[in-house]
Amino acid sequence: MIPESHPRYQSLITREQMAQGARSGVVSLEGLTAHGRGEAFDYLLGERTSPSAAEAERVAAALLMTADHPVISVNGNTAVLCAEAIASLQMVTDAVVEVNLFHRTEGRVDLVTAFLQDAGCNVLEGPVSRFIPLDHDRGLCHEEGIAAADVILVPLEDGDRAEALTRMGKKVIAIDLNPLSRTAQTATLPVIDEVTRAIPAITRDFRLLGTDEADRLVKALDGKKYLREAVVTIQKRLEYVLD
Amino acid sequence: MIPESHPRYQSLITREQMAQGARSGVVSLEGLTAHGRGEAFDYLLGERTSPSAAEAERVAAALLMTADHPVISVNGNTAVLCAEAIASLQMVTDAVVEVNLFHRTEGRVDLVTAFLQDAGCNVLEGPVSRFIPLDHDRGLCHEEGIAAADVILVPLEDGDRAEALTRMGKKVIAIDLNPLSRTAQTATLPVIDEVTRAIPAITRDFRLLGTDEADRLVKALDGKKYLREAVVTIQKRLEYVLD
Repeated sequence: MIPESHPRYQSLITREQMAQGARSGVVSLEGLTAHGRGEAFDYLLGERTSPSAAEAERVAAALLMTADHPVISVNGNTAVLCAEAIASLQMVTDAVVEVNLFHRTEGRVDLVTAFLQDAGCNVLEGPVSRFIPLDHDRGLCHEEGIAAADVILVPLEDGDRAEALTRMGKKVIAIDLNPLSRTAQTATLPVIDEVTRAIPAITRDFRLLGTDEADRLVKALDGKKYLREAVVTIQKRLEYVLD
Repeated sequence: MIPESHPRYQSLITREQMAQGARSGVVSLEGLTAHGRGEAFDYLLGERTSPSAAEAERVAAALLMTADHPVISVNGNTAVLCAEAIASLQMVTDAVVEVNLFHRTEGRVDLVTAFLQDAGCNVLEGPVSRFIPLDHDRGLCHEEGIAAADVILVPLEDGDRAEALTRMGKKVIAIDLNPLSRTAQTATLPVIDEVTRAIPAITRDFRLLGTDEADRLVKALDGKKYLREAVVTIQKRLEYVLD
């Protein structure tokens, strides 16, 4: 057991949750390593939501509010980290929740689906086809889900797929802690924040947002700004540590 | 198979090695996440040994040379990544090699011990007691090993334990890719480099070092300098990306 007195208790607990997810098969071994990369960037960002990321989260809520067919794409890591928060976001936005795995096996799709359902998510099920122009199983998705989406929220997505979705003309909201990643670089709206902080913030913002304000935020959207500001946040933190 | 021409060949091979280690039980699932954290920092450091880290490795060799009772503390990640390199370092330094796990179970201690022995390490075995003032199993070590050490090399160590060892009056050489980590911050000598590059470098330096030069390096030791220089390396790289 991790003692509560450990200064990095929360981070260690989350890591333990992820390890449990890997043992039960919801999370892949590659997912564990990817989680570690995220931890490092969160560390550099000060393990809190920057004012810039908070603004991006408000814009994400606006994009979901103005969407005709919003979809939340969920992988194993996201499911383990915030299944309940996804259920709340789905409740307020009425978005489709689709399981979308980079290391896709039918067994793991079923596991992640059951995990999300237990937390109260309404998960799109049924047959998938290769609607995304990518090799093999990475192109698979649901016709009434990701294929039909105009706005898609992809927490912790692979760079290739984020890029393909953008090319298909979809507005992609990425949640990614690495402002240098291809996912963050190619998304319509990169939210550079930790997923368990970002999703509840988007839900809260959605509840508070009016439709006129949402329209205004979507019109003024400038994704690159959030990347630059995240890099500056990291640089400032490094300078602070340097002193 | 990963093609050797792949620009991220070494990183991908290492990741695969770590996943294998997790499947066989030598590496803990939490260790995979920790590896991901390291990957992110190595990426930010340019995935090469900086001149500053190379200097720190020379000082590490000097500390081991001037020690009365040097000990190399090895966890699962370090074993999988560089068991042979640890064996070579032990051969030239005559240091005690002790298995020291953050997620300690007797079964995993045996697995890591066997893995190191297969690579030619002479591993200290027998009973352990709580010589380190830390909760639970984290305080366990060997009386003739870590407890008796004056200089201890801890690749990839937990911050709590690195701090406790320093408080016990030991000279702690940490190998850590995160210059902001508590391990790096509290170590007597932080080597901010990737462990498979750092350990062979320390071995090579040890072979080339004279005792007078070793004494001089130990007297002039300034650990904080290596932290500052690593942070500057990362900042330069971020500026480059920002442009």
